[in-house]
Amino acid sequence: MSQEKLLLIPGPTPVHPRIIHSLSLPTISHVSPDFVAEFKEALANLKKVVFTAEGQPFIIAGAGTLAMEIALLNTVSPEDRVLVLSQGYFGQRMKEILASFDLQGDIIQSPLGRAVTPEEMENKLAENNYAVVVSTHVDTATGACAPIRSYVEICKEYGTLFILDGVCATGGIEERLDDWGIDVVLTAAQKCFGVPPGLAILVFSPRAMVKRKNMAKIPAYYSDILRWLPVMKDPSKYFSTPCVNEIRAFNEGLRLVIEEGLPERFRRHAQTARAIRAALTTMGLSLFTQEAFLADTLSVILYPPEIKDKEFRQLLAENGVIVAGGLGELQGQVFRLGHMGNLSSSQVIFALEAIEKTLLALGYKLEKGRAIERAEQILSEKIH
Amino acid sequence: MSQEKLLLIPGPTPVHPRIIHSLSLPTISHVSPDFVAEFKEALANLKKVVFTAEGQPFIIAGAGTLAMEIALLNTVSPEDRVLVLSQGYFGQRMKEILASFDLQGDIIQSPLGRAVTPEEMENKLAENNYAVVVSTHVDTATGACAPIRSYVEICKEYGTLFILDGVCATGGIEERLDDWGIDVVLTAAQKCFGVPPGLAILVFSPRAMVKRKNMAKIPAYYSDILRWLPVMKDPSKYFSTPCVNEIRAFNEGLRLVIEEGLPERFRRHAQTARAIRAALTTMGLSLFTQEAFLADTLSVILYPPEIKDKEFRQLLAENGVIVAGGLGELQGQVFRLGHMGNLSSSQVIFALEAIEKTLLALGYKLEKGRAIERAEQILSEKIH
Repeated sequence: MSQEKLLLIPGPTPVHPRIIHSLSLPTISHVSPDFVAEFKEALANLKKVVFTAEGQPFIIAGAGTLAMEIALLNTVSPEDRVLVLSQGYFGQRMKEILASFDLQGDIIQSPLGRAVTPEEMENKLAENNYAVVVSTHVDTATGACAPIRSYVEICKEYGTLFILDGVCATGGIEERLDDWGIDVVLTAAQKCFGVPPGLAILVFSPRAMVKRKNMAKIPAYYSDILRWLPVMKDPSKYFSTPCVNEIRAFNEGLRLVIEEGLPERFRRHAQTARAIRAALTTMGLSLFTQEAFLADTLSVILYPPEIKDKEFRQLLAENGVIVAGGLGELQGQVFRLGHMGNLSSSQVIFALEAIEKTLLALGYKLEKGRAIERAEQILSEKIH
Repeated sequence: MSQEKLLLIPGPTPVHPRIIHSLSLPTISHVSPDFVAEFKEALANLKKVVFTAEGQPFIIAGAGTLAMEIALLNTVSPEDRVLVLSQGYFGQRMKEILASFDLQGDIIQSPLGRAVTPEEMENKLAENNYAVVVSTHVDTATGACAPIRSYVEICKEYGTLFILDGVCATGGIEERLDDWGIDVVLTAAQKCFGVPPGLAILVFSPRAMVKRKNMAKIPAYYSDILRWLPVMKDPSKYFSTPCVNEIRAFNEGLRLVIEEGLPERFRRHAQTARAIRAALTTMGLSLFTQEAFLADTLSVILYPPEIKDKEFRQLLAENGVIVAGGLGELQGQVFRLGHMGNLSSSQVIFALEAIEKTLLALGYKLEKGRAIERAEQILSEKIH
């Protein structure tokens, strides 16, 4: 039935059987030694994923939007000015969150399909005194991947805190908190970790923690990291009941990441992305995102004129693969194919075959099998 | 192993196999027709649990504390004054949440083990112009059950909104939103619904919705119900990714409630409570909570002088049953036994046998088997 279809939207992503198994273990007490050990391990593993020794992880029941709110409220005071670099949909959301709490934010909106350039950002930093810069790593709507390392280098010069929305990136694309100088990474369980949705995930740098501690009062209770901090330091303490099953599932997801090895995981994501794109272009399709900004986790593909969004996605679903439609102004023009998390090569090939079959059924002309061959070739290249 | 122990803390509560099964189904798209249907059904079932035709349900990824915050922020404006009726731990938390957002709140703190009387509340309402009254139904720390119907009657006279924290009650003890005139009921998945933790659950009365809509701006983004409202009206809309697996599990929990029948479920909770207390007092133990304020969902039991908290709970756990220790100033003096959700008679008897065995092993004097007999007798009485 539909539950067995391959879910290739930009999150939730396919959930590995080991993760589902962890989710379905009996619910135990949130203060039992077994659960405390599991929570501790999840926090330690999360630090490994963003390469931090001293950063402070937070795992909190909620959605990615809550993680965005937590990142902003705990680093931005009323006198601060925030610069939001927006590649599309979620940059706008950052601006909305700031506005909801009467915090001051300016936004640089890049043309859709590319990211704000480091130069554009630097010009803005030179103009105004910004305390915090926020950027999405990979925009869910446009598939644009931002040049994070360049942003962070410039932020360092200006002494600006840097918040990274890693929602379609963390655990799939390299993000080094300590080395690069990122101050907050935020994400959600259902993206590159391939865990069912329900967790807001954050890691704060020591500098960001100091900033929070120096802010006397913030307009938050549940979103105040100082209320969660004792629990994150020692999960046997109580603030608010942690979601036992989901946290164990998340830890299992983190174990899969660690077992694969982070460099290997990032290389696998890059290789998968190359294979998928080579196949799609071999089919004659075009990518919406500009080449310099392509992400390893997500592709946004333009429809050829003869293919209609609704028909395509419906028939593709009947052929076993779920992809997402365009968000916002891209609705109807593109489909979005997530390729992040624990996707296997055979799942990639299955998806490409389904896309080919669907296009052919809708009267689109292509040479059957050529695209798949191209993808198989790339996927079989040894990565090292 | 420890995961097979019977979890009788005041939440999480034991999770029925049907609920665990729902939780472990493959994660599907949050906008797929299958999930949209499931989410709709959960919202409709939730309305049935609190007996409302016109109330607006909300199911949001988060903990019970988030539900408390959502209830307050969406009904209390800066010019409003809130009266918090506190039976113990969570009334204090309501006050803290108000203070975090610079909202004005007064608190009536009852002596531990009983609830604020309707007279005490009315005196306070006569003194000041309160816009909102908040009360916990059953306090997790003290086991005190508050006289909600009497509170609401008085609030009606004063035109005051009434927020009910149903965390250890909703779905186990009667709460009638429409008939009684409650304005917000809030709870969490892991209490009387017996679903793993991870969801903040609320139902707003039409009057509470009007109040929110008349408040121009509130200090909230994720906690702003107006951002969630379109999704709750039509779950195919997007605001923030709903936690697919947890919501399906919650719906399965709601189905179990509806199948049992609400009056039958409330009667079962009352009968279970009677049986447990009769057994415990037969063992010679005393209840901490005053008799008039005993809750059908939770018992707080005083330790006899010769029994030490840590030893008792540890040995009881070895005998297969997990109970909670005292919270706050009751730590060491009491243990807390949750008896809410989908607990069966045989689980109740198993727990009582384990308590008896543990007490005997710790040198406490009691006549073996008498308490169990008493409980079995009460549990076998036909309820109608």
